[in-house]
Amino acid sequence: MKLKMMYSFLNSDLNVIEKALEETMQAESPLLHHASLHLLQAGGKRLRPVFVLLAGKFGEYDINKIKNVAVSLELIHMASLVHDDVIDDAELRRGQLTIKAKWDNRIAMYTGDYLFARALEVLSAIEKPIAHQILANTLVELCIGEIEQIKDKFNYDQSVRTYFRRIKRKTAILIAVSCQLGAIAAHVEDEIHNKLYKIGYYIGMSYQIIDDVLDFMATEKELGKPAGGDLQQGNITLPVLFAMEDKKVRDEIIKVNEHTTAQELGKVLAIIKESDAIDRSLIISDQYLQKALTLIEELPQNRARNTLRDIAKTIGKRKF
Amino acid sequence: MKLKMMYSFLNSDLNVIEKALEETMQAESPLLHHASLHLLQAGGKRLRPVFVLLAGKFGEYDINKIKNVAVSLELIHMASLVHDDVIDDAELRRGQLTIKAKWDNRIAMYTGDYLFARALEVLSAIEKPIAHQILANTLVELCIGEIEQIKDKFNYDQSVRTYFRRIKRKTAILIAVSCQLGAIAAHVEDEIHNKLYKIGYYIGMSYQIIDDVLDFMATEKELGKPAGGDLQQGNITLPVLFAMEDKKVRDEIIKVNEHTTAQELGKVLAIIKESDAIDRSLIISDQYLQKALTLIEELPQNRARNTLRDIAKTIGKRKF
Repeated sequence: MKLKMMYSFLNSDLNVIEKALEETMQAESPLLHHASLHLLQAGGKRLRPVFVLLAGKFGEYDINKIKNVAVSLELIHMASLVHDDVIDDAELRRGQLTIKAKWDNRIAMYTGDYLFARALEVLSAIEKPIAHQILANTLVELCIGEIEQIKDKFNYDQSVRTYFRRIKRKTAILIAVSCQLGAIAAHVEDEIHNKLYKIGYYIGMSYQIIDDVLDFMATEKELGKPAGGDLQQGNITLPVLFAMEDKKVRDEIIKVNEHTTAQELGKVLAIIKESDAIDRSLIISDQYLQKALTLIEELPQNRARNTLRDIAKTIGKRKF
Repeated sequence: MKLKMMYSFLNSDLNVIEKALEETMQAESPLLHHASLHLLQAGGKRLRPVFVLLAGKFGEYDINKIKNVAVSLELIHMASLVHDDVIDDAELRRGQLTIKAKWDNRIAMYTGDYLFARALEVLSAIEKPIAHQILANTLVELCIGEIEQIKDKFNYDQSVRTYFRRIKRKTAILIAVSCQLGAIAAHVEDEIHNKLYKIGYYIGMSYQIIDDVLDFMATEKELGKPAGGDLQQGNITLPVLFAMEDKKVRDEIIKVNEHTTAQELGKVLAIIKESDAIDRSLIISDQYLQKALTLIEELPQNRARNTLRDIAKTIGKRKF
């Protein structure tokens, strides 16, 4: 079953969120409006809103309140992608020109800033101080994650632990917080919203590891950007760390940089794919998923719980 | 009397804020720590914290609470300077290398993001939803201001109104909100904190106009960066708009760009200085100050009111 089918019962609420996102893009500045809209129209899975809504189903679900959390977190996700593309010097994202490619780095920087600011503005409708504290902490962690990612680029001596810490900050926290804030906005009791946080965290870790594996396994068409991009940009991911345990493979990997031709890159990708690095990465991803699934069983029984379970299982098998 | 002497009775509280700023810079990431600390040590007038504290004096002043507002707003000011330097491609600020010059644009972007995030984190200690709403709105306005500034660069057909709207967003709002949030954190009644907002706004407008005048009148040593930098970077300020009313002067001004030599730039600066553009700008700045002074007289009588009056008057006469 496809991901989108699993949460089709959320469709009308997701449409509300999509409209709210569009309205948020109605910037007074035409340039900001165009840049943000370009980003919105490039699509995306809207995974964070889905987690927000599902978590809200464990409490007093009110779409008019909870949509603020969903929109806010999706905006933060989009903002971080825009700034990410500046760092990675990326031309394409989801098969579309990135903002930095279509305009320039400066516009991308401020479009990101603007989306961040809008995210805060939208969340400020939730009058619970704890929600703002959680979001602020999350943003701090996101930034540390991004700057560590710059620092760790082309650093072949980093440990697996460094990688885990980085993807926690880069991906897992925002999914965890989507679950937590969705629950908080719906007045879910502490014990359950903390559990939802952990479920989001484990799913996020699993998701990012698979994302990093797919950068080797999927085609350019599936990815919406060239395969092997992470390696070429010096983003040392889990499969690379595992593959480098073989000294010969390591020697090949450290030769790769932005000037490597597609043909040379293809050879290195093939070596990594032939090694056990991909399988070992998938096993780790699966371990995170199992942790998520165990916790999901401890949640109160309802439709959202079943959907969380289905989503977790599908993420473990996704191809792109 | 020098600005700093006027609020010397705030010195011990300003030291508390300086220490809190330093503690905030203790980032887990060494790179972020160094970059932020570099910025902190470059100094600055800490004007926003001064306004926060003064506004707090109209209510239940508690330094342990109000310091969160002061630190938060100074961090936002610093963050916006860092992103500003990326846009302006600035090498120097306050006589020190900018972060983008000492490291690079990407580090500057994330250092700014980090400071923004820290600012929110610090403010989240204030458990008043209205405070977060005000700050979020302010950030949205700041971003729109920055992006409009990019768009308005080298646009010689912009109106004085466009200029006013831009400096409102760029400078005046943050000073206005410093006053307002300082008052809100001290439980000052609505009528007075709205008045304080307006006072901050008028002072901010006056302040920025003078800043723009000083870019022509002050020496490089006084500015901590080369004179005429605004003009060379295409930032069309009030003196330029006035000077361009003379067709011949306009023809000279529109020739200036980033490749203009210091000698050629000096000639154009001299033409502007000889025109009535500087005096007319100073008159407008003074009109804003008078509005601030009128409102200051309507505040409850206390030491902070006298200090606000002194600061407003000094800003109108400052040389750099």
